[in-house]
Amino acid sequence: MFEDFLSPISSEFQVPYRYTVQFTKGIFHLTNPSLRNFLISEQKEGAIKKALVVLDEGLTLHYPNLMTEIKTYFQGFDSVVQLTGNIMVIPGGEECKNNPILWESLVEAVDTYGIDRHSYIVAIGGGAILDLVGYVAAVSHRGIRLIRIPTTVLSQNDSGVGVKNSINHQGKKNFLGTFAPPVAVFNDLQFLESLDDRDWRSGMAEAIKVSLIKDKDFFHWIESNGYFLQSRNLEKMSYLIHRCAELHIDHIANGDPFEFGSSRPLDFGHWAAHKLEYLTKFSLRHGEAVAIGMALDTVYSYQKDFLPKEDKDRILSLLKKLGFVIYHPELSANAKENLYLGLQEFREHLGGRLTITLLAGIGEPREIHEIDLKILAQSVDFLETYV
Amino acid sequence: MFEDFLSPISSEFQVPYRYTVQFTKGIFHLTNPSLRNFLISEQKEGAIKKALVVLDEGLTLHYPNLMTEIKTYFQGFDSVVQLTGNIMVIPGGEECKNNPILWESLVEAVDTYGIDRHSYIVAIGGGAILDLVGYVAAVSHRGIRLIRIPTTVLSQNDSGVGVKNSINHQGKKNFLGTFAPPVAVFNDLQFLESLDDRDWRSGMAEAIKVSLIKDKDFFHWIESNGYFLQSRNLEKMSYLIHRCAELHIDHIANGDPFEFGSSRPLDFGHWAAHKLEYLTKFSLRHGEAVAIGMALDTVYSYQKDFLPKEDKDRILSLLKKLGFVIYHPELSANAKENLYLGLQEFREHLGGRLTITLLAGIGEPREIHEIDLKILAQSVDFLETYV
Repeated sequence: MFEDFLSPISSEFQVPYRYTVQFTKGIFHLTNPSLRNFLISEQKEGAIKKALVVLDEGLTLHYPNLMTEIKTYFQGFDSVVQLTGNIMVIPGGEECKNNPILWESLVEAVDTYGIDRHSYIVAIGGGAILDLVGYVAAVSHRGIRLIRIPTTVLSQNDSGVGVKNSINHQGKKNFLGTFAPPVAVFNDLQFLESLDDRDWRSGMAEAIKVSLIKDKDFFHWIESNGYFLQSRNLEKMSYLIHRCAELHIDHIANGDPFEFGSSRPLDFGHWAAHKLEYLTKFSLRHGEAVAIGMALDTVYSYQKDFLPKEDKDRILSLLKKLGFVIYHPELSANAKENLYLGLQEFREHLGGRLTITLLAGIGEPREIHEIDLKILAQSVDFLETYV
Repeated sequence: MFEDFLSPISSEFQVPYRYTVQFTKGIFHLTNPSLRNFLISEQKEGAIKKALVVLDEGLTLHYPNLMTEIKTYFQGFDSVVQLTGNIMVIPGGEECKNNPILWESLVEAVDTYGIDRHSYIVAIGGGAILDLVGYVAAVSHRGIRLIRIPTTVLSQNDSGVGVKNSINHQGKKNFLGTFAPPVAVFNDLQFLESLDDRDWRSGMAEAIKVSLIKDKDFFHWIESNGYFLQSRNLEKMSYLIHRCAELHIDHIANGDPFEFGSSRPLDFGHWAAHKLEYLTKFSLRHGEAVAIGMALDTVYSYQKDFLPKEDKDRILSLLKKLGFVIYHPELSANAKENLYLGLQEFREHLGGRLTITLLAGIGEPREIHEIDLKILAQSVDFLETYV
């Protein structure tokens, strides 16, 4: 048969990515060179680039002059990059990822303002806004250059410095999304002052998570600085964010950036957290749910005899010291059916074999592939009565 | 200031991709090992994978037993991969990329059938269906493994073996989409028999394009085999598809796969083609529009003294020999305003500086950055009267 002579054609290539996370304060102060220098460094002959700025509504309430500052800042180099007519102000928080009209209006803005693949979308806000705007940028014209300016602890140390985006769909968190690295990230520490106590605190959950599975010394540092962290010391928080972001980026760059493989060990404490967020209709912040999820997996690791008692105690004690509540009534109410369903959904979202990260010690992850529901229920009981 | 001590964090990595395009006939015949062997080679312990098959409606009319064949084929190895309950049958052609309800129903199927990141979506059909289904696969759960079974000349030699997907949005072709390589492609030559003459012919346009900018010898081969190709010789067509696919894949793998740079030299003849497709409300097939676009850019190249007369004549003559019409009244009607608008949109979609590929000879591309509208109008006039 003649098709035997048509040999298979192999396509094999690597796609290179590179971006830098810079730390700064007051990024839109006229004298702050960070963003301006980046944009000028990217200048190419032949075309002035455009930038569409999308801003978290909450920030405009806290910083009434912010929009004017942004416009004035960009005027300083409008021969290189021009701001589109309007800055888009959208409501932040998880709810924005549930809103198809918001998504549509952002895509429409890309069209209206003629934002092309070499122009920029600049997203300023918390993790939810960065996820939503990142997804719009990733799929419009098959990918517009995204600059992230995360403004919360959580987005500065975790989601905002990584490579993912998403929106919720079909009632499932992050059902639609892509892997699409930004071209640059600017962590502006000044914005952290605008956070309420809950957001300040809950962002630390990812730092504890990454310390537990990657860096024992970092866990010790967090322990030693617990008082400063919970009393809103910006210098200590900045170090926590920097180290957490560094570990997160190291994990991405030296691992499996687009998660083609089956395990995702960074997701310690997350399977129950995702489910709890839904069960509580997002009245729990992501970090608050992760703290509970970590407490649960910590106790489960102890009950399974993986984790020594003193490590379990230190972890629970640190969570409480930082002000986290480590139990929620929905855990008991749903210990059997719904938590198990959460496991199934978690497996489905990741795909392939169920892989959960537990702990064999602080800084020592251990992967397992099934959960003993009886011990899980005992762990929930333990947390309910833990003081 | 303490933030000075928070050094920038650099994230740098490469994402590896690998897939093979296999050529076969009768892929769902029980004795055909291609697809089965691929799926078995990917088997991992711990989970049976699922496959959601999406099928071009036109094929079910031409091959009434196809759905049964597919089901029977998969039954042969259902301990490895299980077909989801229903094969989804959807209408093909460009119209399917305009239909948000179709898009939504595919995303819903991913959810309903619990297709995870390690399961498969198998898309069987022409370029439009592959684009639509590929986009659904790319953004559901941040990317489900996509197997493409292209069934037209055009999709087998070009879009179906490449790395893009898209849907139309806001009245703009391919406005939403991503770069997302498939995990495997199977070109089943038997499906080509189902094509009507227009689709058989129009698919050759991309082969002529790639020969003109990449491979003079291939152009000569097409010239020498023009009679066989236009009289539907399957063996010659198979060679044309194989060589075109090979050149296309080589361009992707050894170039800039996700098009981060500014030029896209494979798009010879395409800027006018995209606009013509819209102006004719898609009554022109993509390949038919590309043939006109190539004729226009060929004559323009000649009028600008880039391209020798004999090369211009050979190109136009080959297009006509294969049965292409190389002029459309919409060209004259819109020579000034709308074609110019097309150029702007083309630039916007690619982003950055306008870069158009013209010809300095057969197999010799030349990039230019502006179009002389007067000469463009002359080129249109030339084509109108060309016999």
